[in-house]
Amino acid sequence: MNARLKKNGLVASAFLATSVDGFIAREDGGLDWLVGRGETLGDTGYDDFFASVDALVMGRGTHDIVKDFDEYPYAGKRMLLLSTSLETTDWPDATLHRSLEDVLDTLEREGITRVYVDGGKTVSTFLREGLLSEITISVAPVLIGHGIRLFDQFESDIELEVIATRELGSGFTQSTYRVVPQPEE
Amino acid sequence: MNARLKKNGLVASAFLATSVDGFIAREDGGLDWLVGRGETLGDTGYDDFFASVDALVMGRGTHDIVKDFDEYPYAGKRMLLLSTSLETTDWPDATLHRSLEDVLDTLEREGITRVYVDGGKTVSTFLREGLLSEITISVAPVLIGHGIRLFDQFESDIELEVIATRELGSGFTQSTYRVVPQPEE
Repeated sequence: MNARLKKNGLVASAFLATSVDGFIAREDGGLDWLVGRGETLGDTGYDDFFASVDALVMGRGTHDIVKDFDEYPYAGKRMLLLSTSLETTDWPDATLHRSLEDVLDTLEREGITRVYVDGGKTVSTFLREGLLSEITISVAPVLIGHGIRLFDQFESDIELEVIATRELGSGFTQSTYRVVPQPEE
Repeated sequence: MNARLKKNGLVASAFLATSVDGFIAREDGGLDWLVGRGETLGDTGYDDFFASVDALVMGRGTHDIVKDFDEYPYAGKRMLLLSTSLETTDWPDATLHRSLEDVLDTLEREGITRVYVDGGKTVSTFLREGLLSEITISVAPVLIGHGIRLFDQFESDIELEVIATRELGSGFTQSTYRVVPQPEE
């Protein structure tokens, strides 16, 4: 656990959508099960959430899904890509980082505290290291059976505290949880 | 898909609790992460649900967890155990069944239509066969990292329709879904 960064005021949050069986994308990254059903979704709170952060952190998995989008969805935000394999990026205001420590050092150096962490693997990494503060999960009303899971396996229990639960449109439900800080090792 | 049984009026429902990461029990069947936090849970709707069914169907996995309970929790209900390995049972009003077909035939013969399906594997079997009508999932505010998953992997998407979502006590959230009937093959 990186207590130093926590004390420096890092507030890292995640905002994700899953199927009822806990997948954030199909095995090939496909989001058809998600984007196809959002016509009457209404206000998910995403715009407010996005406006509240100063930077994003994501890994290669999410990068590779997003790079095929017609439009880059994170314009105007600092982007930190955490990957040991990505060679280069042409995303605006983006940098590559080989380690979580380098991400954290960079955020600290740039005085960035409010961070949007995206992607199952990166979110799980932040959770495991005790660095995630809050997570909002919007659940689409479907079981897709296979895919990329939101959560990795953890070594020990991670306690959450529900902040809010509500129904969105299109049959979605949404819960926001605060991550209860783990006891120091 | 067993359309005959559906037409005979079978209404099979599930009522389960999971962690936020989608587990119904630890790998050894442990429920400490669940039962330890229910003091202020309030009315989950379980009693009404239990009163509404005429029989239960569960597999060996759930049987082996429940058999270690201090008190048999399903007194007064017909119990059908779906297992290829269980040799005998001393549970009251319980019978052993080697196949889903035998379970369905037995329900039909006994004129039972309202059934409580329990356990991840059996719930997934009923879902896969298009036999589950409704599922209520209560989510405990914790990530346990490893364990027995609620849902197996499915070959194709299964559409759900949210009926209700609410917060319970103790930080639990609960959603009830109707299973949208799949097109006949």
